[in-house]
Amino acid sequence: MLDQIKKTKEASKELEKLSFQDRNEILYKIAKSFEKFLPDILDANQEDLKNARSLPPALIDRLRLDEKRIFSFIEGIKGLIKLNDPIHRIIEKNTRANGLEIIKQSVPFGVIGMIYEARPNVTSDAIGMCLKSGNAVVLKGGSEALNTNKILVSLAKEALRDFGVSSECIYLIESRENIQEVLKLRGLIDVIIPRGGEGLIRFVVENSKIPVLETGSGNCHIFVDKSADFKMALEVIINAKTSRVSVCNAVEKVLIHQDIARDFIPLLFAKLREKKVEIVGCDKVKQIDSDVIKANERDFFEEYLGYKICIKIIKDLTEAIYHINTYSSHHSESIITNNLENKEKFFREIDSAVVYHNASTRFSDGAEFGFGAEIGISTQKFHARGPMGLEALCSYKYLVSGNGQIRE
Amino acid sequence: MLDQIKKTKEASKELEKLSFQDRNEILYKIAKSFEKFLPDILDANQEDLKNARSLPPALIDRLRLDEKRIFSFIEGIKGLIKLNDPIHRIIEKNTRANGLEIIKQSVPFGVIGMIYEARPNVTSDAIGMCLKSGNAVVLKGGSEALNTNKILVSLAKEALRDFGVSSECIYLIESRENIQEVLKLRGLIDVIIPRGGEGLIRFVVENSKIPVLETGSGNCHIFVDKSADFKMALEVIINAKTSRVSVCNAVEKVLIHQDIARDFIPLLFAKLREKKVEIVGCDKVKQIDSDVIKANERDFFEEYLGYKICIKIIKDLTEAIYHINTYSSHHSESIITNNLENKEKFFREIDSAVVYHNASTRFSDGAEFGFGAEIGISTQKFHARGPMGLEALCSYKYLVSGNGQIRE
Repeated sequence: MLDQIKKTKEASKELEKLSFQDRNEILYKIAKSFEKFLPDILDANQEDLKNARSLPPALIDRLRLDEKRIFSFIEGIKGLIKLNDPIHRIIEKNTRANGLEIIKQSVPFGVIGMIYEARPNVTSDAIGMCLKSGNAVVLKGGSEALNTNKILVSLAKEALRDFGVSSECIYLIESRENIQEVLKLRGLIDVIIPRGGEGLIRFVVENSKIPVLETGSGNCHIFVDKSADFKMALEVIINAKTSRVSVCNAVEKVLIHQDIARDFIPLLFAKLREKKVEIVGCDKVKQIDSDVIKANERDFFEEYLGYKICIKIIKDLTEAIYHINTYSSHHSESIITNNLENKEKFFREIDSAVVYHNASTRFSDGAEFGFGAEIGISTQKFHARGPMGLEALCSYKYLVSGNGQIRE
Repeated sequence: MLDQIKKTKEASKELEKLSFQDRNEILYKIAKSFEKFLPDILDANQEDLKNARSLPPALIDRLRLDEKRIFSFIEGIKGLIKLNDPIHRIIEKNTRANGLEIIKQSVPFGVIGMIYEARPNVTSDAIGMCLKSGNAVVLKGGSEALNTNKILVSLAKEALRDFGVSSECIYLIESRENIQEVLKLRGLIDVIIPRGGEGLIRFVVENSKIPVLETGSGNCHIFVDKSADFKMALEVIINAKTSRVSVCNAVEKVLIHQDIARDFIPLLFAKLREKKVEIVGCDKVKQIDSDVIKANERDFFEEYLGYKICIKIIKDLTEAIYHINTYSSHHSESIITNNLENKEKFFREIDSAVVYHNASTRFSDGAEFGFGAEIGISTQKFHARGPMGLEALCSYKYLVSGNGQIRE
């Protein structure tokens, strides 16, 4: 494995030298090849599904490909072709008094490591986004998707070779070798992006010597302020909770201002029960509606990822902000209010990647943000935060042009 | 220590709420207080120097303060006051078709951890830059500077209290407690910046669970191309090597194109010997000048930080780029050439933080880049690269304003 990754590092230099057109042409070849070999991809996926019968249904669903899903991979890659070049972009330019011209230019990282579960769409997305941004990629996907990943990677490698670029620019770790070994390769892999459940991400964060882009869990909150428009609040909460329950930008906790709780809660709970959402609540909520399950401290931290929600009545905006900053996973939070001062305070004091006013948390997404592609949603503050597009896969360097300048 | 750092994390929220004017006023109070208590700072420093007699002279020199040096701290802090606000800056703004307005705004990290050697100037700089950017700071400086650090920190804390802000925003770790304990506090400390020798930095990088801003060693190269202007090349090399030998942006290696080696080397070596620089060279260099010491593989990697230089004759630009990318610490490299195609190739293919054309590597510095302040020079690609000003101490968040938008 070490030797292979050294080859990938070496090959990454070829990618950086390619022009924008060259990189797009490689993507086009990959998309075409996925189209041409679609039946073979489905066959390989069938093989994986056969071996994966004992997995939970949700995981099997993520592993399963059909024509429509493969076409969405292809559309994803074709969509990348249309995006501007994220590298060799002049970020800043500045001429000093001594005549030195300093240009800050975006460059690829070099080699990006993706560690993820049995989701073939991550394989396709990662190959597309890394190549578009001039990066080589080391893939370590869930072993249950190995056959699917192998064919996707071999088609992409073929496209690289076809174009005259080293196929070592993509490396799929096939063995069940310890991820821990990969995480030690600082200097060979430039960034690690883990995608998956909390356990996987925590393992990577705690064991990696390589810088990590932590994509994370979403324990998202909506705060319904005293002055909230009830109709808007109801629509936003129902959308944020039930439009897709298994995603990180779904709302998990709703905080309600004490002054409106008695009026608002019956309306909200009727809608939630219509959608079969299980309701957990604090003591004060239970006083209003005795049918709710009593919330404990763990509920405040937990990401349910299901038809379940936790409701808490709070005293005021300050308490809401304190609660969110204490229990949130710092992903996405929303305030529903008609009070602009409260909006401003919420915007300034909430310490999360995306902070909303009068909108659903479900918009935390690369496509919804207009990035055209997304490699994940960062819940850390370092390097990139929130939905990450191609820019997050880039570093920069300074190019300084002179005519013999020396320093005094 | 853990309890103290929790208090610092809590206090950091106060800092973020302060206005630009507030933060500048605190800096002004600190500068004034350093002025007023200058004799006390000198006394504390004398105490440290007394205990440090057994240290090597270079370290004692870094530890020693005099009036002039303290005034340079004060000037540094006053200089920060004049700089623009690095936080609450709109980085990008974008209104989506559905009416959502998305603002990407710069924010402080929260708590920055500085781990460094016995250099009181880092204490003063770090306090100034962190407070200016709305960050709290945890300081762990070399124990030989403890008395000096204690008085600088207590004066700064006094200024915070004076302004009505929690003095917990600055925390000096006084005990000799294991740095390893600090490095585990992911979630409490947002970023760790190690400053010091290679050993310290490697230790931090290898043991930190907190994201690290690696500031690093400078094994810097100058490549003298076939078409170089000899006079310029000589001036730049002598400046880059001898204007200050102990700094990371000093040149350590010079690569010379084989076609000009016989003509250029005698001129260069005469100048280097005039400056008492010890010369190490490859076999081909030794054939031209038998007085040089033979270079070995280790020389190519080593950062000398002294009056010593290593010279290698290479075949062409491609070999020069390969050599630099293999042995460099990815800090700063320069090409001296009149061939613009070669300049472009060097700019594109060298994988270092700062790449120069016809200029000294000594310009890799926050002040020379026009940043007004510098917290270190990053040799990593993640988050920040090259000289780091206030911007490197900031993250961002997305603020999304709507009027009831829900996602389909």
